[in-house]
Amino acid sequence: MGGDKAPAEIVAGALQAAEAGLPVILVGDPDRIGDAGGLEVIPASEVIEMHDDPAKAVRSKKDSSLLRAAEAVRDGRASAMVSAGNTGATMASALFRMGRISGVARPAIATPIPVPGSTPTILIDAGANAECSPAWLVQFAQMGSAFARQRFGIAEPRVGLLSIGEEPGKGNPLAKETHALLAAGEAGPAVSFMGNVEGRDVMTDSVDVVVTDGFTGNVVLKTLEGAMRFAFNAVLEALGSTDESRAASEALMPALMPLASELDPDTYGGAVLLGVDGVCIISHGSSSARAIVNAVRVGHQAAAAGLVDQLRSAVAAT
Amino acid sequence: MGGDKAPAEIVAGALQAAEAGLPVILVGDPDRIGDAGGLEVIPASEVIEMHDDPAKAVRSKKDSSLLRAAEAVRDGRASAMVSAGNTGATMASALFRMGRISGVARPAIATPIPVPGSTPTILIDAGANAECSPAWLVQFAQMGSAFARQRFGIAEPRVGLLSIGEEPGKGNPLAKETHALLAAGEAGPAVSFMGNVEGRDVMTDSVDVVVTDGFTGNVVLKTLEGAMRFAFNAVLEALGSTDESRAASEALMPALMPLASELDPDTYGGAVLLGVDGVCIISHGSSSARAIVNAVRVGHQAAAAGLVDQLRSAVAAT
Repeated sequence: MGGDKAPAEIVAGALQAAEAGLPVILVGDPDRIGDAGGLEVIPASEVIEMHDDPAKAVRSKKDSSLLRAAEAVRDGRASAMVSAGNTGATMASALFRMGRISGVARPAIATPIPVPGSTPTILIDAGANAECSPAWLVQFAQMGSAFARQRFGIAEPRVGLLSIGEEPGKGNPLAKETHALLAAGEAGPAVSFMGNVEGRDVMTDSVDVVVTDGFTGNVVLKTLEGAMRFAFNAVLEALGSTDESRAASEALMPALMPLASELDPDTYGGAVLLGVDGVCIISHGSSSARAIVNAVRVGHQAAAAGLVDQLRSAVAAT
Repeated sequence: MGGDKAPAEIVAGALQAAEAGLPVILVGDPDRIGDAGGLEVIPASEVIEMHDDPAKAVRSKKDSSLLRAAEAVRDGRASAMVSAGNTGATMASALFRMGRISGVARPAIATPIPVPGSTPTILIDAGANAECSPAWLVQFAQMGSAFARQRFGIAEPRVGLLSIGEEPGKGNPLAKETHALLAAGEAGPAVSFMGNVEGRDVMTDSVDVVVTDGFTGNVVLKTLEGAMRFAFNAVLEALGSTDESRAASEALMPALMPLASELDPDTYGGAVLLGVDGVCIISHGSSSARAIVNAVRVGHQAAAAGLVDQLRSAVAAT
């Protein structure tokens, strides 16, 4: 029921996923869902809206689609949940109903940042925890590494700590203390710590997992979104500015389209909430049917590969 | 003596500035400067290198070009200093030799972020203070507003606080406490506070001054740099990918070149350190002669307009 294009695009995506061999259960108001195309529907009479306060909403709307979806995962009726709705409420629903993986201090959002020509960079935490401790960031490094292995098949993900200079002494107290812990091997042998990275490294293939607090991570995510939208619009404007450029732009389309597709957030199907005891996929609020198909696939693959058990091992390793 | 292309490009830029009617004094090692083209040279035998530790270097290299340049401003021999060298050492030199404006808690770096079709957005603090208090951010709002007025002629600059959601309750403790102070009018009537903004707003014309701590600000700056470089390279690659696209690219150049120029950091000549008792321009390490001309112009205009006195009034207003 959540997302800017719900429920139509969500249901369309679910049907496409089912046709592609990824079984889907819908959760929501049967009347608003309409024709479910033969998919099972778990009824939920309430909807947590995009503007609802997450903490209040999950306490008051017990029959919401978000809480019912999280319960379906908890009860083993579903292997993963996917939501394009209120991000805070999605996290709270997953946390309250599935619980945390034993040993995890705080779940974190892992968002793949597209790097054309290479595997995406995992940004963690992309917004779950506005304030973090160094020990939590060490766990984000562990969980992010396990996720990069499962999701993109990277054998030894290179983990960078986001700071404002390469030297260990650069950064705010959180970055400096986290650097000391990671450099001392506190994350265990499964984490390949390469030191500090900077904002300019996120969209390059020089790092696989970028660790930061949820405030900084969310600022980076939104800054990249804004910059890419800006660049995209600026190029479109240039292409359409004169008769000559409009004619020329046709010759460029075959080269520009694959890039646009690789940069489209819908391609990766959304972020994953790591650290809860179940698979929870957080899709962009503007998710299209295509984004939902990809999100269902990400959830399916994570469940099939045993991501949650891999995360459990990762945080227990030290 | 500082910067990736020093001293050749720096001297070339100084000569061009002088020819344009902006008088320049060079500070540095006369032997390495070579032909100064008739410009006055204040000799300095030492150089603070890009990799030097700023705090140590300004204590040990008393005859460095950075400290001598800051002394020239302090002593009234120069109206402003410009450096493309070690940023930390530039700040320390300015702070130690010029001192702070009375009442300023911490100087901050104000960096213009290009917004094609509009005036740039001032990002403050772009990296001077990795850790900040809410009261300092209130001063950044005051100083950033005064600077936006002087530098870009914006009568009532709209000030946004960088956070991870528009609602006042969103963000880390620093953002939430600063929001409360700014919303209560603590910055005085000269600051038009519009509330929280997000990373995606920085490159738009919806805000004139974006206030944040130096850690987050520097991450945003580097993230934008990386994203713009990425987009630029991706478009160049698409233009050069086939015979057809190479032929088409000529027709597109007239439309793309003005955009590239507007986005070029050299266009704005660098950032300004606000809060020290003198004008200090911090240019990009890779500054070309063109960037230096623009930096000299920015310094000249700031001095002529009385920026330091405007900042003094701005922080004293409350």
